[in-house]
Amino acid sequence: MTAAPRSRDRRRRDTEHRLTHDIDTWVASASADGAPYLVPLSFDWDGESLLMATPTDSPTGRNLAATRTVRLGLGHTRDVSMIEGEVEVLGIDALPAAAGDRFAARTGFVPQALNFVRAGETPLRRPPRTAGSASPRAASRPGAR
Amino acid sequence: MTAAPRSRDRRRRDTEHRLTHDIDTWVASASADGAPYLVPLSFDWDGESLLMATPTDSPTGRNLAATRTVRLGLGHTRDVSMIEGEVEVLGIDALPAAAGDRFAARTGFVPQALNFVRAGETPLRRPPRTAGSASPRAASRPGAR
Repeated sequence: MTAAPRSRDRRRRDTEHRLTHDIDTWVASASADGAPYLVPLSFDWDGESLLMATPTDSPTGRNLAATRTVRLGLGHTRDVSMIEGEVEVLGIDALPAAAGDRFAARTGFVPQALNFVRAGETPLRRPPRTAGSASPRAASRPGAR
Repeated sequence: MTAAPRSRDRRRRDTEHRLTHDIDTWVASASADGAPYLVPLSFDWDGESLLMATPTDSPTGRNLAATRTVRLGLGHTRDVSMIEGEVEVLGIDALPAAAGDRFAARTGFVPQALNFVRAGETPLRRPPRTAGSASPRAASRPGAR
Protein backbone atom coordinates (compact mmCIF):
# COMPACT_ATOMS: atom_id res chain seq x y z
CA MET A 1 0.00 0.00 0.00
CA THR A 2 1.84 3.03 -1.22
CA ALA A 3 -1.19 5.29 -1.62
CA ALA A 4 -1.32 8.29 0.66
CA PRO A 5 -3.83 8.13 3.51
CA ARG A 6 -7.25 9.37 2.53
CA SER A 7 -8.36 12.76 3.80
CA ARG A 8 -11.00 12.91 6.49
CA ASP A 9 -13.63 14.16 4.03
CA ARG A 10 -12.73 11.45 1.57
CA ARG A 11 -12.97 8.77 4.25
CA ARG A 12 -16.40 10.02 5.25
CA ARG A 13 -17.60 9.97 1.64
CA ASP A 14 -16.20 6.46 1.15
CA THR A 15 -17.92 5.29 4.32
CA GLU A 16 -21.24 6.83 3.31
CA HIS A 17 -20.98 5.17 -0.09
CA ARG A 18 -20.44 1.79 1.54
CA LEU A 19 -23.27 2.32 4.02
CA THR A 20 -25.58 3.11 1.12
CA HIS A 21 -24.47 0.40 -1.31
CA ASP A 22 -22.86 -2.52 0.53
CA ILE A 23 -24.98 -5.36 1.80
CA ASP A 24 -22.66 -7.11 4.28
CA THR A 25 -20.52 -5.91 7.14
CA TRP A 26 -18.14 -7.63 9.55
CA VAL A 27 -19.61 -7.54 13.05
CA ALA A 28 -17.23 -7.80 16.00
CA SER A 29 -18.74 -8.23 19.43
CA ALA A 30 -17.56 -9.45 22.79
CA SER A 31 -18.99 -11.21 25.79
CA ALA A 32 -19.04 -9.28 29.03
CA ASP A 33 -15.96 -11.21 30.17
CA GLY A 34 -13.89 -10.55 27.05
CA ALA A 35 -14.43 -13.39 24.56
CA PRO A 36 -14.36 -11.91 21.05
CA TYR A 37 -16.78 -12.93 18.34
CA LEU A 38 -16.83 -12.09 14.66
CA VAL A 39 -19.29 -12.82 11.92
CA PRO A 40 -20.46 -11.26 8.65
CA LEU A 41 -24.03 -9.98 8.64
CA SER A 42 -26.20 -8.25 6.09
CA PHE A 43 -27.46 -4.79 7.00
CA ASP A 44 -29.67 -1.95 5.94
CA TRP A 45 -28.79 1.69 6.45
CA ASP A 46 -31.46 4.31 6.98
CA GLY A 47 -29.15 7.29 7.01
CA GLU A 48 -28.60 7.20 10.75
CA SER A 49 -28.12 3.63 11.86
CA LEU A 50 -27.41 0.14 10.58
CA LEU A 51 -30.09 -2.46 10.98
CA MET A 52 -29.00 -6.08 11.31
CA ALA A 53 -30.73 -9.30 12.28
CA THR A 54 -29.34 -12.07 14.43
CA PRO A 55 -30.88 -14.81 16.56
CA THR A 56 -31.36 -13.82 20.18
CA ASP A 57 -29.45 -16.89 21.34
CA SER A 58 -26.52 -16.62 18.93
CA PRO A 59 -23.12 -15.47 20.23
CA THR A 60 -23.54 -12.15 18.41
CA GLY A 61 -27.10 -11.70 19.68
CA ARG A 62 -26.12 -12.47 23.25
CA ASN A 63 -23.02 -10.28 23.14
CA LEU A 64 -24.77 -7.25 21.67
CA ALA A 65 -27.62 -7.51 24.15
CA ALA A 66 -25.16 -7.73 27.04
CA THR A 67 -22.64 -5.06 26.10
CA ARG A 68 -24.56 -2.84 23.66
CA THR A 69 -21.33 -2.18 21.87
CA VAL A 70 -20.23 -3.25 18.41
CA ARG A 71 -17.35 -2.62 16.05
CA LEU A 72 -18.11 -2.93 12.36
CA GLY A 73 -15.79 -3.34 9.40
CA LEU A 74 -17.13 -2.32 6.00
CA GLY A 75 -15.30 -3.17 2.80
CA HIS A 76 -12.26 -5.31 2.23
CA THR A 77 -9.07 -5.49 4.24
CA ARG A 78 -7.29 -3.00 1.97
CA ASP A 79 -10.20 -0.58 1.67
CA VAL A 80 -11.87 -0.43 5.01
CA SER A 81 -14.28 1.78 6.90
CA MET A 82 -14.46 1.02 10.61
CA ILE A 83 -17.44 2.08 12.69
CA GLU A 84 -17.91 1.88 16.41
CA GLY A 85 -21.54 1.74 17.36
CA GLU A 86 -23.89 1.69 20.25
CA VAL A 87 -26.44 -1.06 19.92
CA GLU A 88 -30.18 -1.01 20.45
CA VAL A 89 -31.89 -4.39 20.50
CA LEU A 90 -35.29 -4.49 18.82
CA GLY A 91 -37.59 -7.44 19.12
CA ILE A 92 -39.00 -8.34 15.73
CA ASP A 93 -42.39 -7.08 16.91
CA ALA A 94 -40.88 -3.69 17.65
CA LEU A 95 -39.57 -3.24 14.12
CA PRO A 96 -41.66 -0.92 11.95
CA ALA A 97 -43.06 -2.84 8.98
CA ALA A 98 -41.51 -0.42 6.50
CA ALA A 99 -38.07 -0.98 8.01
CA GLY A 100 -38.54 -4.74 7.82
CA ASP A 101 -39.63 -4.54 4.19
CA ARG A 102 -36.69 -2.34 3.36
CA PHE A 103 -34.31 -4.73 5.10
CA ALA A 104 -35.74 -7.69 3.19
CA ALA A 105 -35.49 -5.86 -0.14
CA ARG A 106 -31.88 -4.90 0.41
CA THR A 107 -30.54 -8.12 1.90
CA GLY A 108 -32.70 -10.58 0.00
CA PHE A 109 -33.93 -12.51 2.98
CA VAL A 110 -36.81 -12.19 5.39
CA PRO A 111 -35.61 -13.07 8.85
CA GLN A 112 -38.05 -14.93 11.00
CA ALA A 113 -37.83 -15.32 14.72
CA LEU A 114 -34.79 -13.09 14.77
CA ASN A 115 -34.07 -10.06 16.83
CA PHE A 116 -33.00 -6.93 15.08
CA VAL A 117 -30.17 -4.83 16.34
CA ARG A 118 -29.69 -1.24 15.40
CA ALA A 119 -26.17 0.14 15.58
CA GLY A 120 -25.76 3.88 15.54
CA GLU A 121 -22.47 5.54 14.90
CA THR A 122 -20.80 6.95 17.95
CA PRO A 123 -17.76 9.17 18.11
CA LEU A 124 -14.51 7.29 17.79
CA ARG A 125 -11.92 7.93 20.41
CA ARG A 126 -9.63 9.40 17.79
CA PRO A 127 -10.44 11.46 14.73
CA PRO A 128 -12.06 11.04 12.26
CA ARG A 129 -15.01 11.62 14.49
CA THR A 130 -17.60 9.14 13.26
CA ALA A 131 -15.80 6.77 10.93
CA GLY A 132 -12.21 5.73 10.50
CA SER A 133 -10.33 3.76 7.97
CA ALA A 134 -7.43 1.43 8.21
CA SER A 135 -5.24 -0.69 6.07
CA PRO A 136 -3.31 -3.71 7.29
CA ARG A 137 0.09 -2.19 6.84
CA ALA A 138 -0.87 0.78 8.90
CA ALA A 139 0.03 -1.60 11.72
CA SER A 140 3.59 -0.50 11.15
CA ARG A 141 2.64 2.87 12.56
CA PRO A 142 2.84 2.47 16.32
CA GLY A 143 -0.45 3.22 17.97
CA ALA A 144 -2.40 2.78 14.75
CA ARG A 145 -4.08 -0.33 16.02
CA MET B 1 -26.88 -17.39 -1.64
CA THR B 2 -28.51 -20.46 -3.05
CA ALA B 3 -25.44 -22.68 -3.04
CA ALA B 4 -25.54 -25.68 -0.75
CA PRO B 5 -23.37 -25.51 2.38
CA ARG B 6 -19.86 -26.74 1.79
CA SER B 7 -18.88 -30.11 3.17
CA ARG B 8 -16.57 -30.27 6.14
CA ASP B 9 -13.66 -31.51 4.00
CA ARG B 10 -14.29 -28.80 1.45
CA ARG B 11 -14.36 -26.13 4.14
CA ARG B 12 -11.07 -27.36 5.53
CA ARG B 13 -9.45 -27.30 2.08
CA ASP B 14 -10.80 -23.81 1.44
CA THR B 15 -9.46 -22.63 4.79
CA GLU B 16 -6.03 -24.16 4.19
CA HIS B 17 -5.91 -22.50 0.77
CA ARG B 18 -6.65 -19.13 2.33
CA LEU B 19 -4.11 -19.66 5.12
CA THR B 20 -1.49 -20.45 2.52
CA HIS B 21 -2.30 -17.73 -0.02
CA ASP B 22 -4.13 -14.82 1.60
CA ILE B 23 -2.18 -11.97 3.15
CA ASP B 24 -4.76 -10.24 5.33
CA THR B 25 -7.22 -11.43 7.92
CA TRP B 26 -9.87 -9.71 10.04
CA VAL B 27 -8.81 -9.80 13.68
CA ALA B 28 -11.51 -9.55 16.34
CA SER B 29 -10.39 -9.12 19.92
CA ALA B 30 -11.97 -7.89 23.12
CA SER B 31 -10.89 -6.13 26.25
CA ALA B 32 -11.22 -8.06 29.48
CA ASP B 33 -14.41 -6.14 30.25
CA GLY B 34 -16.10 -6.79 26.94
CA ALA B 35 -15.28 -3.97 24.52
CA PRO B 36 -14.95 -5.46 21.03
CA TYR B 37 -12.22 -4.43 18.62
CA LEU B 38 -11.75 -5.26 14.96
CA VAL B 39 -8.99 -4.53 12.53
CA PRO B 40 -7.46 -6.09 9.42
CA LEU B 41 -3.91 -7.36 9.83
CA SER B 42 -1.47 -9.09 7.54
CA PHE B 43 -0.32 -12.54 8.58
CA ASP B 44 2.01 -15.38 7.79
CA TRP B 45 1.07 -19.03 8.18
CA ASP B 46 3.68 -21.65 9.04
CA GLY B 47 1.37 -24.63 8.78
CA GLU B 48 0.39 -24.54 12.43
CA SER B 49 -0.23 -20.97 13.47
CA LEU B 50 -0.78 -17.48 12.12
CA LEU B 51 1.85 -14.88 12.84
CA MET B 52 0.72 -11.27 13.03
CA ALA B 53 2.32 -8.05 14.21
CA THR B 54 0.70 -5.27 16.16
CA PRO B 55 1.98 -2.54 18.46
CA THR B 56 2.04 -3.54 22.10
CA ASP B 57 0.02 -0.48 23.05
CA SER B 58 -2.62 -0.74 20.31
CA PRO B 59 -6.15 -1.88 21.22
CA THR B 60 -5.51 -5.20 19.47
CA GLY B 61 -2.13 -5.65 21.14
CA ARG B 62 -3.52 -4.87 24.57
CA ASN B 63 -6.58 -7.08 24.10
CA LEU B 64 -4.67 -10.10 22.84
CA ALA B 65 -2.13 -9.85 25.64
CA ALA B 66 -4.90 -9.63 28.22
CA THR B 67 -7.30 -12.30 26.99
CA ARG B 68 -5.09 -14.52 24.79
CA THR B 69 -8.12 -15.17 22.63
CA VAL B 70 -8.81 -14.11 19.07
CA ARG B 71 -11.39 -14.75 16.39
CA LEU B 72 -10.21 -14.42 12.83
CA GLY B 73 -12.16 -14.02 9.62
CA LEU B 74 -10.45 -15.02 6.38
CA GLY B 75 -11.91 -14.18 2.99
CA HIS B 76 -14.86 -12.04 2.08
CA THR B 77 -18.27 -11.85 3.69
CA ARG B 78 -19.76 -14.34 1.23
CA ASP B 79 -16.84 -16.76 1.28
CA VAL B 80 -15.57 -16.91 4.80
CA SER B 81 -13.39 -19.12 6.96
CA MET B 82 -13.63 -18.37 10.65
CA ILE B 83 -10.92 -19.42 13.07
CA GLU B 84 -10.89 -19.25 16.83
CA GLY B 85 -7.40 -19.09 18.19
CA GLU B 86 -5.39 -19.04 21.33
CA VAL B 87 -2.82 -16.28 21.31
CA GLU B 88 0.83 -16.33 22.26
CA VAL B 89 2.54 -12.95 22.50
CA LEU B 90 6.11 -12.87 21.22
CA GLY B 91 8.36 -9.91 21.79
CA ILE B 92 10.16 -9.01 18.59
CA ASP B 93 13.40 -10.26 20.14
CA ALA B 94 11.80 -13.68 20.69
CA LEU B 95 10.91 -14.12 17.04
CA PRO B 96 13.24 -16.44 15.11
CA ALA B 97 14.96 -14.50 12.33
CA ALA B 98 13.70 -16.92 9.69
CA ALA B 99 10.12 -16.36 10.80
CA GLY B 100 10.59 -12.59 10.67
CA ASP B 101 12.09 -12.79 7.19
CA ARG B 102 9.27 -14.98 6.02
CA PHE B 103 6.71 -12.60 7.48
CA ALA B 104 8.35 -9.64 5.75
CA ALA B 105 8.48 -11.48 2.41
CA ARG B 106 4.83 -12.42 2.54
CA THR B 107 3.34 -9.20 3.87
CA GLY B 108 5.72 -6.74 2.25
CA PHE B 109 6.61 -4.80 5.34
CA VAL B 110 9.20 -5.11 8.06
CA PRO B 111 7.61 -4.27 11.36
CA GLN B 112 9.77 -2.41 13.78
CA ALA B 113 9.14 -2.07 17.47
CA LEU B 114 6.11 -4.28 17.16
CA ASN B 115 5.13 -7.29 19.12
CA PHE B 116 4.27 -10.41 17.26
CA VAL B 117 1.31 -12.52 18.17
CA ARG B 118 0.94 -16.11 17.18
CA ALA B 119 -2.58 -17.48 16.95
CA GLY B 120 -2.95 -21.22 16.88
CA GLU B 121 -6.13 -22.89 15.84
CA THR B 122 -8.14 -24.33 18.67
CA PRO B 123 -11.14 -26.59 18.44
CA LEU B 124 -14.33 -24.73 17.79
CA ARG B 125 -17.19 -25.41 20.12
CA ARG B 126 -19.17 -26.88 17.25
CA PRO B 127 -18.02 -28.93 14.28
CA PRO B 128 -16.17 -28.46 11.99
CA ARG B 129 -13.44 -29.02 14.48
CA THR B 130 -10.76 -26.52 13.55
CA ALA B 131 -12.33 -24.16 11.04
CA GLY B 132 -15.83 -23.13 10.22
CA SER B 133 -17.43 -21.17 7.48
CA ALA B 134 -20.30 -18.82 7.41
CA SER B 135 -22.22 -16.67 5.03
CA PRO B 136 -24.28 -13.66 6.01
CA ARG B 137 -27.61 -15.22 5.13
CA ALA B 138 -26.87 -18.18 7.32
CA ALA B 139 -28.10 -15.79 9.99
CA SER B 140 -31.56 -16.93 9.07
CA ARG B 141 -30.74 -20.30 10.58
CA PRO B 142 -31.34 -19.88 14.29
CA GLY B 143 -28.25 -20.58 16.30
CA ALA B 144 -25.96 -20.11 13.33
CA ARG B 145 -24.52 -16.92 14.70
